[in-house]
Amino acid sequence: MPVPVGPEALVPRLRAICGDAGVLTDPAQRRTYESDGLTYHAELPGVVVLPTSTAQVAAVVRLCAEEGVPFVPRGAGTGLSAGALPRSDGVLVVTSRMRRILEVDVEARCAVVQPGVANLDVTRAAAPHGYYYAPDPSSQQVCSVGGNIAENSGGAHCLKYGFTVNHVLGLEIVTPAGDVVRLGGKVAEAPGYDLIGAFIGSEGTLGIATEITVRLLRAPERVRTLLAAFPTMDAGGRAVSAVIAAGVLPAAIEMMDALAIEAAEAAVACHYPKGAGAVLIVELDGPAADVDAQFAAVTALCREAGATELRTATDAAERARIWKGRKSAFAAVGRISPSYIVQDGVVPRTALPEVLRRIADLSAESGIRVANVFHAGDGNLHPLVLFDDAEPGAAERAAEVSGAILDLCVEHGGSITGEHGVGVDKACHMPDMFSPADLATMDLFRRAIDPAGIANPEKLLPTPRLCGEPPGVRTDVHPLVASGEAELF
Amino acid sequence: MPVPVGPEALVPRLRAICGDAGVLTDPAQRRTYESDGLTYHAELPGVVVLPTSTAQVAAVVRLCAEEGVPFVPRGAGTGLSAGALPRSDGVLVVTSRMRRILEVDVEARCAVVQPGVANLDVTRAAAPHGYYYAPDPSSQQVCSVGGNIAENSGGAHCLKYGFTVNHVLGLEIVTPAGDVVRLGGKVAEAPGYDLIGAFIGSEGTLGIATEITVRLLRAPERVRTLLAAFPTMDAGGRAVSAVIAAGVLPAAIEMMDALAIEAAEAAVACHYPKGAGAVLIVELDGPAADVDAQFAAVTALCREAGATELRTATDAAERARIWKGRKSAFAAVGRISPSYIVQDGVVPRTALPEVLRRIADLSAESGIRVANVFHAGDGNLHPLVLFDDAEPGAAERAAEVSGAILDLCVEHGGSITGEHGVGVDKACHMPDMFSPADLATMDLFRRAIDPAGIANPEKLLPTPRLCGEPPGVRTDVHPLVASGEAELF
Repeated sequence: MPVPVGPEALVPRLRAICGDAGVLTDPAQRRTYESDGLTYHAELPGVVVLPTSTAQVAAVVRLCAEEGVPFVPRGAGTGLSAGALPRSDGVLVVTSRMRRILEVDVEARCAVVQPGVANLDVTRAAAPHGYYYAPDPSSQQVCSVGGNIAENSGGAHCLKYGFTVNHVLGLEIVTPAGDVVRLGGKVAEAPGYDLIGAFIGSEGTLGIATEITVRLLRAPERVRTLLAAFPTMDAGGRAVSAVIAAGVLPAAIEMMDALAIEAAEAAVACHYPKGAGAVLIVELDGPAADVDAQFAAVTALCREAGATELRTATDAAERARIWKGRKSAFAAVGRISPSYIVQDGVVPRTALPEVLRRIADLSAESGIRVANVFHAGDGNLHPLVLFDDAEPGAAERAAEVSGAILDLCVEHGGSITGEHGVGVDKACHMPDMFSPADLATMDLFRRAIDPAGIANPEKLLPTPRLCGEPPGVRTDVHPLVASGEAELF
Repeated sequence: MPVPVGPEALVPRLRAICGDAGVLTDPAQRRTYESDGLTYHAELPGVVVLPTSTAQVAAVVRLCAEEGVPFVPRGAGTGLSAGALPRSDGVLVVTSRMRRILEVDVEARCAVVQPGVANLDVTRAAAPHGYYYAPDPSSQQVCSVGGNIAENSGGAHCLKYGFTVNHVLGLEIVTPAGDVVRLGGKVAEAPGYDLIGAFIGSEGTLGIATEITVRLLRAPERVRTLLAAFPTMDAGGRAVSAVIAAGVLPAAIEMMDALAIEAAEAAVACHYPKGAGAVLIVELDGPAADVDAQFAAVTALCREAGATELRTATDAAERARIWKGRKSAFAAVGRISPSYIVQDGVVPRTALPEVLRRIADLSAESGIRVANVFHAGDGNLHPLVLFDDAEPGAAERAAEVSGAILDLCVEHGGSITGEHGVGVDKACHMPDMFSPADLATMDLFRRAIDPAGIANPEKLLPTPRLCGEPPGVRTDVHPLVASGEAELF
């Protein structure tokens, strides 16, 4: 192990690799990168580099490995779990200058892109051929495909189409040693360990993806979107259950409660039905005949469940109007609350009614308002916990409510994150969900690929410095929060 | 590291774990397990154990770890790459007594099963609820779900539905240290490293799956099957390209050449059209309206490509008649040749015509007949290389032709195996397909999970003992075939 040096000592060699324009040392420039989308975690990066090729990324990482300097990968910086939080003792590797679409291979139904390419630009490149790229996080206009890989991003349509991991055929990665390794490729059936799945969602802890081969899907023949208003969340929930029980698999089922509707109305005047206790957006896509038949069934099921108003969209403009309120919901909350926390948790779909009632109780008991916006089809909740920074103690109470919602998710067999990732923000919650043996197995894998511990340290898995020793963790077998030893077996 | 003992030294302790009936030491009994479906690799296992629970599997593996004795997992023994080849110095862990279906959860659309459950039994349990389990290897009546996990098995319908890895939500595994670890579960969105993908297809080298949660799919509303006869393979290939280019995604597209048709006729009198140079089986499934529309399109495209005869099936009996010849093709070859090798390779679909022509050339040059049966939709070839054991040198020439076909697959950007796995049989071919850095990364992962090297040694990745030093492999960086050192970085 080399004696670690400060990142500033690497600057001349980083300039030799990335050029003068590719290395930022000025504090004002570095400050631009001090956080990702979760702004309450911030730290000034030691040095920022902006490589333009795989060879530059590999050379930068190899230098970090030689000198024992940590590195943090960053895409567009839209992450919501501080997964790209920089380190003052480290190098921030930003992929924003690697934004070429290298190939759209219609015959093989895939595209090959660099990591800095914006998510939506993949679909823009494929659309003239009648194809698209399915994962669609709300930030898809700006978020990068490389960042989507790091976080295994989803989107409104992952009920039917799955997550990023379901749409990546191949990766070229730079390992934490600076080696260039290929995982998978255009042909699906490769033998050996399928490490693509393990790399996707690894939040930069296993290296940096430098070239990504994604699957393209045929654009559906028809898309139909329904907005249904219900008097209560329970009635909306019944409609969701009825649709799924009928064997219909919509592309998306989104739900918003009264407070979220109020916020969206205040922000973008989306004109959702007035006085509704809940709205549901159901989108169907596929072959025309099939979509039309299912659409009729869904409409009938919503009526039976007590829908008070139904609106349908058949063209892109009408669709956009229906989605406008939903897509603006997070930002819109700023209109009705000075501050808020966006939580991200998952419960089994069958536990949704119970968990929503418990969230309402938590809100009533604490006096902290909670607006609910969520992917109802797959139980991915995004509660918005509202508070006023100016009110003493409000931020703490909001954080408590937000944490209690995560506990509810785990208690009901769900997950501490659906699509925003773990990062720094939730690393200490990992032992709530995983046993010491589960976490130790993950750590074995991490240490095998990154023995020096320089790839985005302190993200994803709990560490003693971040989390202390969480209650209930057996320190004798859990190296992550205990001794730091790699020897487990 | 313990000094390794022989497996016979473990027998009393194995009996204490699995009971007397769960430990086989008699040579005649052990001989039943001396090979899997690839019978030309055989070795008498040191001891055979038949555990009935996760706790027994964990205790057996822990004992092996303590004593440094290798273990080999085995399901139903239908594998075709000697992945379950026993070792005389090791313990064979057979899962055939762990065959309970623990749960069919219709609401969550999944089933939880033990590893010894036969593939088809999952569908049998789900069928009364209107659901099924998609992966369908030809051996599905007997092959086990645990074995399917080990080999990432596919089947005729993986063009549309993917492989085993696309249908497993959660695993309970026993690691090579004997720890019980959970990967994933009913809720899809789990954070941390997604090691399910890496475990599936790991051929027993990362441990033993003891409980498996699989996704269930809704049984399709309609299934239609078409048999189309063509004068030549080229004409059949044109039909395949036309179907895919039209944006149709059939559940299956299977192709057989004249020699395979002749064999099937001789064995099961399937009455495929006489004199055809190729037959194509195209199956469509999904919503009725959609299937009917697409079926009309496929029929028209086959006619345009030169089909001389078209037969359609709409009910289960007619479907079975069409599939009969295809499903019996491998065994049927015994009717026209004393011996044969079933090869398994993949080429990108677009390279199929070229590769088929090259296979025909190889056959003509060597005088070795090759029958072609394959999943045309995803380019997964199963050439049957025919020879007569009694003829001196024929077996060697057949093996050469079979190996040359694999080389063709790699040369065209394909894979050395589509669904039969690597096992012992193809471990030495891995360097044809992967770079030293790719293989070294896999080996790092393997050694992290199995530092003692006791989990199915010498399967999947090349070793010096098996392969020597393959040409073109840099021995200075490739620990798998060179020094055996784990230190790479």
